[in-house]
Amino acid sequence: MKKMGTMEIVKGKLQIGGMDLEDLAKEYQTPLYIMDEAHFEQTARIFTENFQSKVFQGNVLYASKAFTNIYLVKKVKELGLCLDVVSGGELYTALKAGLDPQRIYFHGNNKLAKELEYATEAGVGRIIIDNQDELTLLLGILEEKKLRQEVLLRVNPGVAAHTHEYIQTTNEKSKFGLSIHDEGTKDVVRQMVTSEWTDFRGIHCHIGSQVFEEESFFKSADLMIGYAKELEDELGIPIKELNLGGGFGVYYTPEDKPFELGAFLRRYVAHIEESLSEAGLEPESVDIEPGRSLINGSGSTLYRIGSIKHPMKGDPFLLVDGGMTDNPRPAMYQAKYEAGLVSRPDAPSEQTYTIAGRACESGDVLITGAKLPKAQVGELLIVPNTGAYTYSMSSNYNRIERPAVVFVKDGQARVAVKRETYADLIRNDVE
Amino acid sequence: MKKMGTMEIVKGKLQIGGMDLEDLAKEYQTPLYIMDEAHFEQTARIFTENFQSKVFQGNVLYASKAFTNIYLVKKVKELGLCLDVVSGGELYTALKAGLDPQRIYFHGNNKLAKELEYATEAGVGRIIIDNQDELTLLLGILEEKKLRQEVLLRVNPGVAAHTHEYIQTTNEKSKFGLSIHDEGTKDVVRQMVTSEWTDFRGIHCHIGSQVFEEESFFKSADLMIGYAKELEDELGIPIKELNLGGGFGVYYTPEDKPFELGAFLRRYVAHIEESLSEAGLEPESVDIEPGRSLINGSGSTLYRIGSIKHPMKGDPFLLVDGGMTDNPRPAMYQAKYEAGLVSRPDAPSEQTYTIAGRACESGDVLITGAKLPKAQVGELLIVPNTGAYTYSMSSNYNRIERPAVVFVKDGQARVAVKRETYADLIRNDVE
Repeated sequence: MKKMGTMEIVKGKLQIGGMDLEDLAKEYQTPLYIMDEAHFEQTARIFTENFQSKVFQGNVLYASKAFTNIYLVKKVKELGLCLDVVSGGELYTALKAGLDPQRIYFHGNNKLAKELEYATEAGVGRIIIDNQDELTLLLGILEEKKLRQEVLLRVNPGVAAHTHEYIQTTNEKSKFGLSIHDEGTKDVVRQMVTSEWTDFRGIHCHIGSQVFEEESFFKSADLMIGYAKELEDELGIPIKELNLGGGFGVYYTPEDKPFELGAFLRRYVAHIEESLSEAGLEPESVDIEPGRSLINGSGSTLYRIGSIKHPMKGDPFLLVDGGMTDNPRPAMYQAKYEAGLVSRPDAPSEQTYTIAGRACESGDVLITGAKLPKAQVGELLIVPNTGAYTYSMSSNYNRIERPAVVFVKDGQARVAVKRETYADLIRNDVE
Repeated sequence: MKKMGTMEIVKGKLQIGGMDLEDLAKEYQTPLYIMDEAHFEQTARIFTENFQSKVFQGNVLYASKAFTNIYLVKKVKELGLCLDVVSGGELYTALKAGLDPQRIYFHGNNKLAKELEYATEAGVGRIIIDNQDELTLLLGILEEKKLRQEVLLRVNPGVAAHTHEYIQTTNEKSKFGLSIHDEGTKDVVRQMVTSEWTDFRGIHCHIGSQVFEEESFFKSADLMIGYAKELEDELGIPIKELNLGGGFGVYYTPEDKPFELGAFLRRYVAHIEESLSEAGLEPESVDIEPGRSLINGSGSTLYRIGSIKHPMKGDPFLLVDGGMTDNPRPAMYQAKYEAGLVSRPDAPSEQTYTIAGRACESGDVLITGAKLPKAQVGELLIVPNTGAYTYSMSSNYNRIERPAVVFVKDGQARVAVKRETYADLIRNDVE
């Protein structure tokens, strides 16, 4: 198991943020989401310090969908990040945390009327329009409210992520955005440019998730700059903002080879600068939207082993007190994770286990082929790299309460989200 | 789209339970879970009336994990069903609904100490022990509390569901139960028999989900009866109860060919009676545990179409106001569904659509290849057969509020679960 962030072994036991994990488990129970606050701060600084340019303002937008709550948004604010939201609920959370609405970017492929009303009234910085129907809806709302809104358009540059090849067609089936190869897309831009209710700022794209080839990002930046140039030339309008999305790959297991972030970001900026210069474009700002790569490595999930079973065939099972309800990624995406025993993080591996969850579902298996020391019932098991898309995707399947989220730093723990209670599970049931 | 339960077309529009769906959408908003109460009652009666025998008491246990809330449990009570729960949260819901704890069966492969304490203190009818470690935990709790508990043991008969073949080994890798081919399993039974704190009633199995071959159920019944006989002979104890689980396949699309339930249940009872007679066994009761087959066909999800998009390649998208957050089954299991347009349920198909959800996730696609009349933005779309494993597996991913659940019957609607609010989403956030 790779040690992330402030993880260290003290007297043979694993600590995060200077906190003993057995102490945390006793105080906050398991399963428990543990966020390494110093590691998150450090990662955010790598982004903000390296995504800087002399020719444009570099904005780093944290993607709420990876993991959000009021405390997290307060950290986003403190760290000078902007925020990407994709629903009224994410927007509500951000506003409740006191984030300046101008720093909020509203995404999504099917925003509801009530959400567009909420966002425009709140004065969010940007609304990223996904399609013609959404624009029509927004224009009606803005006209009725006599509000003017800064907007971007989500376009689809047709870059196939996860590959070195530049394939223009692969993403043409995406549910997101409008294709840069579709002439109709320019008609949508024209409406935003000519409407008195929208201030058209520029274009946005997002090429995918867990992308490990920097060439994919460079190619999509080139395509976006090329398309921006085309819009400037054909429509005679300046493109003030380019939003290049996120998707920077992160470490889950040794199979994942993330690039060193700081160096990559500097190369990325240099590439964008060069490409802009060649096209003769001078946008005011360029945005990136890391979510997973900002938070994933800072999160771990702590479980307690309840039973150890030896089936007739296959590896023995470690049955833990959480699973697909707090982390649906293995069940949904066959996602892979590492694990370790908290009290013996460095002991040699002796046994290969299947780590299974407690839900009544065959698919509730967190990790197969986990190599660990011989485990005991009652021991704590840690799964690192669960900062993104675990709590945010969690469910109450089997009416299992969602765990607490605790931020740890410098020997202090702070509850950001309280553990759900049984009463929470029936709070909306009508008797 | 196949019409389920009380669905009927009145003046060209689809109704359920005598309720106009556009009226329901106006009153309760979309997305909306609609439960056809009369259809659920009818299905429950098919089970209770046909799973009857002169030689044993036939118990029908509704599996909470498919779909539960207080109103549903009250229906379970009224319909004379017993209830299968798999967590403290499901148990809490059942008790809050006023169900007699003696009618509750507590399942799960890794029950927590606090849950076993709760269940034994509440006096649940049965606890189904999954493994040795769980039994050790339970015995300690019972001894400390001086309580005696009726228990079953979950065993794994090694039947491969979804196949006609009888393969003893396929399920030997399951995380659930103990194998009937493992001699150690009898030692666990012996502990339950000899402990003064447990009253060993019998054995439980569950061979899988969405099983369409009745032969699989007959084979597993034979294996369970054979194993019960073995236990009676070797341990000299009577097996008073056989719990044969569920897994009866249901209709989602024309690919699914469910058996006619009433006739199947009568054949199932006859088969069990014959097999018991051959083995010379006389258990007091035999249990079955339908969840999906009791509720799935009674549920539909109502969405409103927000945008229609025509990508450069592939079918046009209908973007609806829900998706993977209210129904994760397509994303998680590549589950298939049918869909229809509420205002034109019988109009001829003109177009093949991809029906995609609103979550910022490429995988949020509900149905591919949906053949429908030409749809309009603002129209209502219905997806039937969503009664099971939709609401129960729902999440707040993207901080999307979970929809309301409305039961409809005889022209009346009744909210069973209120729609979540934005405030619900941050209720456990600590500021």
